Amino acid sequence: MKAISVDSINESNPFIEIDIPDIEDNEVLIKVHAIGVNHVDLLWIDQKQNMNSIIPGLEMSGEIVKSNSSNLPVGTRVAALLDNSGYAEYVAVDASRVILLPDEVSYEEGATIPESFLTAYQTLFMVGHLKPQQTVLIHAGASGVGTAAIQLAKKLCDATVITTSSERKTAICKNYGADYALDYNKQNFADEVAKITNGKGANLVLDFIGASYFDKNIASLGQNGQLVLIGNLGGNIVSNVDLLSLMSKGITITGTLLSTRPKEYKADLISQFNKVAMPLLKSKKIRLKVGSIFDFDQAAEAVDYMRNKKNVGKIVLKI
Amino acid sequence: MKAISVDSINESNPFIEIDIPDIEDNEVLIKVHAIGVNHVDLLWIDQKQNMNSIIPGLEMSGEIVKSNSSNLPVGTRVAALLDNSGYAEYVAVDASRVILLPDEVSYEEGATIPESFLTAYQTLFMVGHLKPQQTVLIHAGASGVGTAAIQLAKKLCDATVITTSSERKTAICKNYGADYALDYNKQNFADEVAKITNGKGANLVLDFIGASYFDKNIASLGQNGQLVLIGNLGGNIVSNVDLLSLMSKGITITGTLLSTRPKEYKADLISQFNKVAMPLLKSKKIRLKVGSIFDFDQAAEAVDYMRNKKNVGKIVLKI
Repeated sequence: MKAISVDSINESNPFIEIDIPDIEDNEVLIKVHAIGVNHVDLLWIDQKQNMNSIIPGLEMSGEIVKSNSSNLPVGTRVAALLDNSGYAEYVAVDASRVILLPDEVSYEEGATIPESFLTAYQTLFMVGHLKPQQTVLIHAGASGVGTAAIQLAKKLCDATVITTSSERKTAICKNYGADYALDYNKQNFADEVAKITNGKGANLVLDFIGASYFDKNIASLGQNGQLVLIGNLGGNIVSNVDLLSLMSKGITITGTLLSTRPKEYKADLISQFNKVAMPLLKSKKIRLKVGSIFDFDQAAEAVDYMRNKKNVGKIVLKI
Repeated sequence: MKAISVDSINESNPFIEIDIPDIEDNEVLIKVHAIGVNHVDLLWIDQKQNMNSIIPGLEMSGEIVKSNSSNLPVGTRVAALLDNSGYAEYVAVDASRVILLPDEVSYEEGATIPESFLTAYQTLFMVGHLKPQQTVLIHAGASGVGTAAIQLAKKLCDATVITTSSERKTAICKNYGADYALDYNKQNFADEVAKITNGKGANLVLDFIGASYFDKNIASLGQNGQLVLIGNLGGNIVSNVDLLSLMSKGITITGTLLSTRPKEYKADLISQFNKVAMPLLKSKKIRLKVGSIFDFDQAAEAVDYMRNKKNVGKIVLKI
């Protein structure tokens, strides 16, 4: 089968020829129809000397063509979260990594689900324990994880959703369901959250920014609130953290990356996600947005497109 | 009835005469037999100008003499967690605040349970989610909360328990069941935890110290570990916190004070504690230690004893 490695992607012929993988107990073989392009793919390709010809690709969608799992018969339409090797015509994955796609979701749309929606789901619910009618502050609200989190928080918890973004993206946040879309250049989000919640503060903050937002994030939280850190675009080092304020407000801070969680955790996450999200995907209550579609042999162009920050929304490769 | 307020305690007659409280729906009236003395009592007495003649006392034990709760008949031996007003002959409390005492536990022993054991239980299990066979690092292992936490972690989770204390108190920690009792003056606890766990790190750290231990606490934790902050004897301000290390290790930090939790939370805590601890108290698998006993009219001496740090173990007032 054809695949694209970190070494071959920039060659005139980007493909390498390798064996279709065998499947082990409880694994399925998926014929790949679409692949989600992630920032990590770009990092791996740019650092290829340390990557031993690895095949990038953390998420894809396709059709099961061989199965060692009685729950996932041949012909099932699925997406999957991978550790790597998504840039290929076939992938073998454990059944616990498979997201079920209803017929109403195209393969291109399906390939945008795993990273964004599973990250949003785990941070909101498995780590953040969001409860019905609570208030959540979502930074980078127009990003892939942000738009997924807005929708999941609204549809599953009827939460009050407050986002931050640049001014031109506030409309996107509103469009996906944010109740309040703040402009981070013009508004102090901690002050705005206090106003919106009548001084009570938010129950949960999802943050991709890190150090530069830290103090305002803590100030935005109410009693027994939680800050979940999933990115560090604004730096890593926070100076002068006051532990007494964490104690008296009963604050929890959790740093989390989906990629470093153990496989049992990922299996539990995907199993929960399949149960709650499938009906929402089927009834189109969750909207999926493909930004740009490239053919598989244009993978280098797709990655360049991301490197040059030309994409709005997810980039997908189509086989 | 007789009671002792923050204003009257240092008078030659320390008692004030007030009405026996009425009980509301779901409350019980308890005839007080023993009262646990806490550091907060001392703080309130020393700051009495702001305290409006409040009656101190966060925990006591006694016998139910009047009941509006069908689950708690007259005659039941109990201890209770109070917001205040324990320095009195009778207290009225909601049934949800009541810990059941088996006959095997004396009233003096019972008065030592609420603050220490409920704090230890909530930090280990409700906040810290300790699982069977995990590893927990407990600072100030010989303190009231420390000895309670050692016992609960061993008996309920068969955890590997590592404590820190001064050298002369390591024997106390061992005696209550600690597997490894570190001397904080002679040993770097982060290095020792790494050795004990073969580099894996602890799952949970219970910390009363705060800023001065922060970096070593984070270093002591393994992947997806949690630091629970319940004290700040070593200062509040941490000068540099690295968020990337929190994210890549999946660390959770929670600050918590039992007193600021909502009443539903306290009710849930006490209900869980009654279920799991009652059999352990009955069979004497949990050891309770009374440090010193004073008569009720000697309350001022008891508080002075604490002020001058003369106590080893809990001080109890006996009525």
